[in-house]
Amino acid sequence: MKVETAVAAMTATLEAERATGRRVGLVPTMGALHPGHAALIRRAADECDVVVVSVFVNPLQFGPTEDFERYPRDLDADVALAAAAGATHLFAPTVAQMYPSPVATTVSVAGLTDTMEGAHRPGHFDGVATVVAKLFAIAGPCRAYFGEKDYQQLLVVRRMAADLSFPVEVVACPTEREPDGLARSSRNAYLSPAERRAAPVLHRALQAAAEAAGAGVSDPAGLRRVMAEVLATEPDVVLDYAEAVDAGSLAVPDGAFPAGSDIRLLVAARLGATRLIDNLAATVAAAGAAPTHPRPTRKAEPACAGA
Amino acid sequence: MKVETAVAAMTATLEAERATGRRVGLVPTMGALHPGHAALIRRAADECDVVVVSVFVNPLQFGPTEDFERYPRDLDADVALAAAAGATHLFAPTVAQMYPSPVATTVSVAGLTDTMEGAHRPGHFDGVATVVAKLFAIAGPCRAYFGEKDYQQLLVVRRMAADLSFPVEVVACPTEREPDGLARSSRNAYLSPAERRAAPVLHRALQAAAEAAGAGVSDPAGLRRVMAEVLATEPDVVLDYAEAVDAGSLAVPDGAFPAGSDIRLLVAARLGATRLIDNLAATVAAAGAAPTHPRPTRKAEPACAGA
Repeated sequence: MKVETAVAAMTATLEAERATGRRVGLVPTMGALHPGHAALIRRAADECDVVVVSVFVNPLQFGPTEDFERYPRDLDADVALAAAAGATHLFAPTVAQMYPSPVATTVSVAGLTDTMEGAHRPGHFDGVATVVAKLFAIAGPCRAYFGEKDYQQLLVVRRMAADLSFPVEVVACPTEREPDGLARSSRNAYLSPAERRAAPVLHRALQAAAEAAGAGVSDPAGLRRVMAEVLATEPDVVLDYAEAVDAGSLAVPDGAFPAGSDIRLLVAARLGATRLIDNLAATVAAAGAAPTHPRPTRKAEPACAGA
Repeated sequence: MKVETAVAAMTATLEAERATGRRVGLVPTMGALHPGHAALIRRAADECDVVVVSVFVNPLQFGPTEDFERYPRDLDADVALAAAAGATHLFAPTVAQMYPSPVATTVSVAGLTDTMEGAHRPGHFDGVATVVAKLFAIAGPCRAYFGEKDYQQLLVVRRMAADLSFPVEVVACPTEREPDGLARSSRNAYLSPAERRAAPVLHRALQAAAEAAGAGVSDPAGLRRVMAEVLATEPDVVLDYAEAVDAGSLAVPDGAFPAGSDIRLLVAARLGATRLIDNLAATVAAAGAAPTHPRPTRKAEPACAGA
């Protein structure tokens, strides 16, 4: 695996690879690679001839009070994990290489960014859309792999790529989970042992709401309540938001979701100084379907890893 | 010359051309091609193997009260002019092909867009930066040719391309002029005979200010006054702005420009329902230089075409 730091060289390398007929896969990351990233890289290696893992902690997407400075960085470990998972190139530019002068250009995606992470982290999605547009411009035609763990980000990136006609196919990959259901995240490293024990409550809340939706709860407020009730069982977990939204538009209907709707359940919560997010797909029960789980807040079993 | 309308096909064609070692030139236009565009296309044909002229009247860069609907469109004439000037491809997508769903994504460039056209045409440069980012994403690595006639746009596009790491070299080409000095513009077609006779006053105003700068007038207010005085000699010309700015940053100093500064003089004015812009490079006299033109408002001779 080759490690590249220069923007122009990365572009030229991938252009030359495509000229010989090779297909390029891109896995954008902020480093601190974990098994969730490894799954993205393996998928890219299955589907592409050249796999670039970018490692860049992007200052634009952190708010002034957020964890940019303390975000975990370990390039040697990232190199080892990326190579083992099948990457052919690791692109690790410095901040000065990516932003040689103050960035005057911002890429914004309206609508999808108004709520949830967009509302709680002002400027976050502008920073994400800007750096991903830049990575897409650098990479050229490719398949780009994003985890569903950051579901709102996935939709924002997909919309940005389509709107700007980047020749990039955005591939969504399922969230990787610990055996107890906690979504894999670089930020899990911040958790104290007690916080780590409490953290799977996010996934349990999502599972409970998904079951409730399948059992006939079709109004967003009802689904939000299910999630809040489960989260309240862990007193050290502070809820930022718990939402039930249309899976494609992220819209919340005034009334109930239509029967059979594909929805997404999303939650953000703080454990001490650490903020975690997670989400889950669900389907609102089809009209006339018999509710199979009449107790929506019951504690779910831990999920299998890789679900 | 091949005419292409589909976005994905245009990208694939240019990727295939580059794979065989050919260099791509891009000339983004809104059509209504005139000799100014022909000069851009000829320059691109001199320097590149494949020359794409894009013809797209971009609704995003027109304000609600502006001339989007009546903007001149004549694809057959554009095809003939582009082919004669050396284009190999004309890319003429429809609005529905460029924006199949409402555009949620906006590319904005801060700073350079605060003044002049940015101040007088709210949203204009967002529309420009967004569509040019899209054209750069479609085209891939290339040289892109822009006229200095739209000087502020040129700087905005160059900054956007650099900030987003598009593998595009933005090439600035001199303004083409009519024999009487009027800058070539598709909007000149709107002018009545009387307005057409008055229109060269924009260029005369710029020339007068350039001579004043060379003769020792170094304060922006003084240079603005020179332009305003010349423009006032045509009573049917209504000034939007006349500015003297730093040629690179578009900044206006609080006091005088330093001796020897490269500055840009820019003017916008309305003639009836038509709004014209023009600009000219100038250099503030070096310290101690003897003023050679003590009467800054004197009427300049008409410039040669192609100046």
